[in-house]
Amino acid sequence: MPGINVAIVGATGSVGQEMIRLLNQGRLPVAELRCFASPRSAGQHIEFQNRSIPVHPLTDNCFQGIDVTFFSAGKSVSLLYAPQAVLQGSWVIDNSSAFRMNPSTPLVVPEIHKDTLPPSPAIIASPNCVATIAALVLAPLQTLSPIRRIIATTYQAASGAGHRAMVELQEETAAYLASKSYHRSVMPHPYAFNLFPHNAPMMESHYNDEESKIIEELRKILSTPKLRIGVTSVRVPVLRAHSIALNVEFKQSVLPQAAKDLLHVSQGITVLENWEQNRFPMPLDASGQDNIFVGRIRTDCSNPNTLDLWVVGDQLLKGAALNVIQIAHKIFLSSKIEA
Amino acid sequence: MPGINVAIVGATGSVGQEMIRLLNQGRLPVAELRCFASPRSAGQHIEFQNRSIPVHPLTDNCFQGIDVTFFSAGKSVSLLYAPQAVLQGSWVIDNSSAFRMNPSTPLVVPEIHKDTLPPSPAIIASPNCVATIAALVLAPLQTLSPIRRIIATTYQAASGAGHRAMVELQEETAAYLASKSYHRSVMPHPYAFNLFPHNAPMMESHYNDEESKIIEELRKILSTPKLRIGVTSVRVPVLRAHSIALNVEFKQSVLPQAAKDLLHVSQGITVLENWEQNRFPMPLDASGQDNIFVGRIRTDCSNPNTLDLWVVGDQLLKGAALNVIQIAHKIFLSSKIEA
Repeated sequence: MPGINVAIVGATGSVGQEMIRLLNQGRLPVAELRCFASPRSAGQHIEFQNRSIPVHPLTDNCFQGIDVTFFSAGKSVSLLYAPQAVLQGSWVIDNSSAFRMNPSTPLVVPEIHKDTLPPSPAIIASPNCVATIAALVLAPLQTLSPIRRIIATTYQAASGAGHRAMVELQEETAAYLASKSYHRSVMPHPYAFNLFPHNAPMMESHYNDEESKIIEELRKILSTPKLRIGVTSVRVPVLRAHSIALNVEFKQSVLPQAAKDLLHVSQGITVLENWEQNRFPMPLDASGQDNIFVGRIRTDCSNPNTLDLWVVGDQLLKGAALNVIQIAHKIFLSSKIEA
Repeated sequence: MPGINVAIVGATGSVGQEMIRLLNQGRLPVAELRCFASPRSAGQHIEFQNRSIPVHPLTDNCFQGIDVTFFSAGKSVSLLYAPQAVLQGSWVIDNSSAFRMNPSTPLVVPEIHKDTLPPSPAIIASPNCVATIAALVLAPLQTLSPIRRIIATTYQAASGAGHRAMVELQEETAAYLASKSYHRSVMPHPYAFNLFPHNAPMMESHYNDEESKIIEELRKILSTPKLRIGVTSVRVPVLRAHSIALNVEFKQSVLPQAAKDLLHVSQGITVLENWEQNRFPMPLDASGQDNIFVGRIRTDCSNPNTLDLWVVGDQLLKGAALNVIQIAHKIFLSSKIEA
């Protein structure tokens, strides 16, 4: 097929960089790549297929001739520019939270949503990273029995706060090991060999904004608007993969083996579970991998009809850049995800 | 009062070192300190009150004349030598799991158990670190309403695996940052900027031994032998304080403010909770502190009568050495814990 004209807004950020890496791998047939970033980063160049692509600031009509624009530059940039991109004829796949809970905006995990895209250019939202990773596991499971309640407890990596947070974690840790002082500029609390409840803004409900997004988006992705979900989000000193302890109560009893067998044949999931060797998914297993990893699937001894699962996924890939590229794949190429 | 003759078995380990630090602070009136360790560590010397105390291997009759012996050298050493110490007239306060679930052995957190000690020298068990830290918060709460179910999800520090694990975490992280290879000898998996389900031996129930201890010991400490408890234990790259996300379902509704007010006046607990500043307990807050820290006390939106709490405590202090010293204080000095 002919190539697609692609624009990336936020091309110099951690998710933008992952998108470019995936495009360089040929995940989409790209005819033209147009890169945008904040005025601070504009002027940089990005290597793409042995060419050097200049990074521009956003301007009027900058999306003319573009087939699909990937937004990953924060909510306010998406709110302002995504509608303009659609008006200029481009599909928008938005990695920010700007439009996710808009009733008319599809919130898409391609493995889960087989046929929900509009017929012509529109804004498609890609979910919060934890919501995407958890949903990949929860969507197949709810075909075994309706889910009654989920308790998700997270171990979230630095990458969720951007490239600078990843650098800061390493620099602060190096300083700690050398008994030197270090001035943080990204994270609000010490991060070297430390952890803290997620630093997203606190809501009146006493859930923070991250937890609130995970709850609301999971309900939308799973098409269960009243599903009972509790979440505790925590930042841990890990670089780029999120881990989630999922406690899932079903209407009927679900055997761990039945869950494992189903997840084993579900798209986008690698089951990693060796009870004899006590070997289950770790952030290092998932880092750089398309698939999310699941294991430690066991019956919760404290509640009937309840399973515990341990899920780990690359926050930058399936949690962000890869999901966005897969949505574009679905729009332009087929409803089938690449194997 | 006259001083107490104290022996420490495992004096060169991480918990033993913390005990000596506490004794050097005058937490107990010590007349004689006798230090024991494995033959590998015997021959070392320990600084105590400006004296240099030699470290001996365990021998027949080595507890003669001792009032209280602190065991922190693993289960097999306790099983073999703790009964001998009692026969030689010494109280034993055992930090291992050897006797904890023995029906006739008290499992003691002094703030919780006001009057359960035998009249003459016996073995007293000090609980698993996570169980101690969680119980300190759960015991007051169950006076507000009976607890129906607990889901505990842990973030456990390197110190739980001993001093060498703490050194290894730092060395492996330094090697990672320098892009050098590193040969681990303590932990089974990469630990630098990584985490993994707890490496304790796996049980047939698919709970690991750590989780199983936490469940059984919490039931014993809280005097609720059938309490429904689910636990997921995870090792995180933190040095010496454990964090626990506690989801606690009560028989009746408990307001977060009522829980907070009660915990605020409970012994051994510091409430650290600032919703405006999103400031809650972190491992660094608790490290080196006697008190455990609790905050983020909120209603679980997914279940009636349920609170979420975030608890952090120093694994080496209240999770081990401090609790042991406090038990001795209770035996020899009063039933009142030092403020």
